[in-house]
Amino acid sequence: MRSFIIKGTICYSLSPKELAVHPNGYAVCVDGVSMGVFAHIPGEYQHLPALDYGDHLVIPGLVDLHIHGPQYTFRGTGMDLELMDWLQKYAFPEESRFENPEYAAQAYEIFARQMKKSATTRAVVFGTRHATATEILMEKLEETGLVTYVGKVNMDQNAPEGLQEASAEASAEATVQWLEQTAERFERCKPILTPRFIPSCSRQLMEKLQEIRKAWNVPLQSHLSENPLEIQIVGEMFPQEPSYGHCYDRFGMMDEKTIMAHCVYSSPEEVQLIKQRGVFVAHCPASNTNIASGIAPIRRYLDGGLRVGLGSDVAGGQTESIFRAMTDAIQVSKLYWRLVDNSCKPLCFAESFYLATMGGGAFFGKVGSFLPGYAFDALVLDESAMPYWSPMDPVQRLERYAYLQTGGEGLLAKFVAGTKII
Amino acid sequence: MRSFIIKGTICYSLSPKELAVHPNGYAVCVDGVSMGVFAHIPGEYQHLPALDYGDHLVIPGLVDLHIHGPQYTFRGTGMDLELMDWLQKYAFPEESRFENPEYAAQAYEIFARQMKKSATTRAVVFGTRHATATEILMEKLEETGLVTYVGKVNMDQNAPEGLQEASAEASAEATVQWLEQTAERFERCKPILTPRFIPSCSRQLMEKLQEIRKAWNVPLQSHLSENPLEIQIVGEMFPQEPSYGHCYDRFGMMDEKTIMAHCVYSSPEEVQLIKQRGVFVAHCPASNTNIASGIAPIRRYLDGGLRVGLGSDVAGGQTESIFRAMTDAIQVSKLYWRLVDNSCKPLCFAESFYLATMGGGAFFGKVGSFLPGYAFDALVLDESAMPYWSPMDPVQRLERYAYLQTGGEGLLAKFVAGTKII
Repeated sequence: MRSFIIKGTICYSLSPKELAVHPNGYAVCVDGVSMGVFAHIPGEYQHLPALDYGDHLVIPGLVDLHIHGPQYTFRGTGMDLELMDWLQKYAFPEESRFENPEYAAQAYEIFARQMKKSATTRAVVFGTRHATATEILMEKLEETGLVTYVGKVNMDQNAPEGLQEASAEASAEATVQWLEQTAERFERCKPILTPRFIPSCSRQLMEKLQEIRKAWNVPLQSHLSENPLEIQIVGEMFPQEPSYGHCYDRFGMMDEKTIMAHCVYSSPEEVQLIKQRGVFVAHCPASNTNIASGIAPIRRYLDGGLRVGLGSDVAGGQTESIFRAMTDAIQVSKLYWRLVDNSCKPLCFAESFYLATMGGGAFFGKVGSFLPGYAFDALVLDESAMPYWSPMDPVQRLERYAYLQTGGEGLLAKFVAGTKII
Repeated sequence: MRSFIIKGTICYSLSPKELAVHPNGYAVCVDGVSMGVFAHIPGEYQHLPALDYGDHLVIPGLVDLHIHGPQYTFRGTGMDLELMDWLQKYAFPEESRFENPEYAAQAYEIFARQMKKSATTRAVVFGTRHATATEILMEKLEETGLVTYVGKVNMDQNAPEGLQEASAEASAEATVQWLEQTAERFERCKPILTPRFIPSCSRQLMEKLQEIRKAWNVPLQSHLSENPLEIQIVGEMFPQEPSYGHCYDRFGMMDEKTIMAHCVYSSPEEVQLIKQRGVFVAHCPASNTNIASGIAPIRRYLDGGLRVGLGSDVAGGQTESIFRAMTDAIQVSKLYWRLVDNSCKPLCFAESFYLATMGGGAFFGKVGSFLPGYAFDALVLDESAMPYWSPMDPVQRLERYAYLQTGGEGLLAKFVAGTKII
């Protein structure tokens, strides 16, 4: 049943600054696609079954543009190091364990279960460099009903023995085999090319990935300008390039089907390139705080017309909650305004809500709103754990929910492209 | 039954940097006081009843040095303004409603219930300027079993009509009557003098409060150096004082029974005064972020030997969770290090745990540890909502719990001075 009507107090973004609010509205879904939200059910839809959620808040599903599946096992720990040391001490040793498919199956079972319970309806996910484990991750995510992209990671240098791939050829070959296995295998989970980041990939590997991408026409995700030491290393590897982003660009990896996580320290040249190419920026405020990277100037990116969404970046970020990412984005933007640049106005709630829905959703097409023609991803919120006393309008209730609901609970229902998965 | 033994995986602070960890330890409580933690039950305590919590984490109760009871009603909303405007638009109008005792009873019932469910065992609480409502707040908190200080707020200037007290005399008189009603009425809830902050109190009122404090020998709480505009206003009111803190000091309000919330912008003179007088700093990282005040340099205060604890500062902070305050404190200290002063090393987990337990606990006496002689405040943590896969040591489990457990649930048991309240 992918055609139906939901009644509730419906909120969704029209643009970065505009929230539409329909108390007692009717959101109409036909074959998994939104027909819009109405004050009364239009005649042509009167025959559809209606789900009455009373005054409960109904919003579009949330989109996570950047999360590491294998790092879910150690989320909330190991918060005492910066990026490069953090990778060596925590992330790489844990990722090494995913060579064992049994380990992968058990860890990814927990990850997938938690993602299903979360407010996330669509996610773009890093696996490890292991093709078998990554295919297991895809199987598990497919079962959740979420729509996802998942990447087998490429890394043929600067990684610990065991985790590092044997050669550029071996990495490329494993990637092609993985694409052959998975490109058409799942309905909702698709592969995405995933060179870990410039320091992890030889030029030869990057050239091969460029060829693979042309041949397979798949999107791509990576990391960009997250930490000062990382940027320094990249600068030493490619002294002739005007920015870190240009290193990806020389291999044809910067375009409108690319997500670059972080962009904390993007130079004006890099920002210009991101904009020209239509690259998506995955803003990961919790991770950038936890591993002390800094604060990305999202106000400047939004006002400059860049495409921006949110990422939980587990396990740099401690939680998969995109509600938490939403409020973290507001909070760090205030500290950026106060401590770094008082011409960068803090993000308002409507803007962070936009980032979590339409902003990131655009990577998946028409996703992240109830405007007509958008995929019908929806959450019905359960506020019962938040007793309130002051009278609140729907936007205040939504704001409060985002600030207080940071765990994986609190949903009465969750729909992805018109299919109810909770 | 206030004499018993708890078996569990017991963690507590010995000092700001040292965490004691006893897997399968026995914490002994006699008449509500800790006798210490042992690997085996000492002979003299063999007769005591034992509660076996297996491998569950057992830690001291958490201490909230700064929370506004009446603002609980609008927590998680109204995050778009700085302090002075935020008070006028959100806090003062809501506090005005507490003139009505029925309103107060209903709102404080919710507040008290949530505090009881929380990980907080001791709290220092602002009421409103209304004596009746504040006494109701004290009744409700007494029933929870928490140990608390609660203040009737004094404010005779710069507040909206209705909320502002009629005169210094009226404010002082109401305060004395309230003290007469409440000083001896409750076992666990005691009054604390609460001049809101310098801009809200005339000199005449401050002089009267100084007299009242001498006569009644009660502790005192207020706000200090939170926001640049606030500090500017205070500077204009007292141009001859070397710091905001010295304005309180001239009325005898800076001593070892004083809590000053925030101290984001304390000058070297003010820090020196705080240290000399033994004043407690209530660090409120969420509030300082949400109303864009800035980041308090807690590393400097800790290393300088100041007495520091944590405050949730609801509703500048969105949640009463001191676990959240703990991780917020770490997170903002990283941003301070990165963006403001890289000689201020980020707080580590052991330090923030200390702030939340022993640091703030010291305001209540020997509170916040299981060292012998400390009040037996204890939490038994429920990690069942956090499935984990990687093997973790007790401190990693505790760190993860603090990062992920941000709501009011997740406790198997809660003891205050040896009395089980959950």
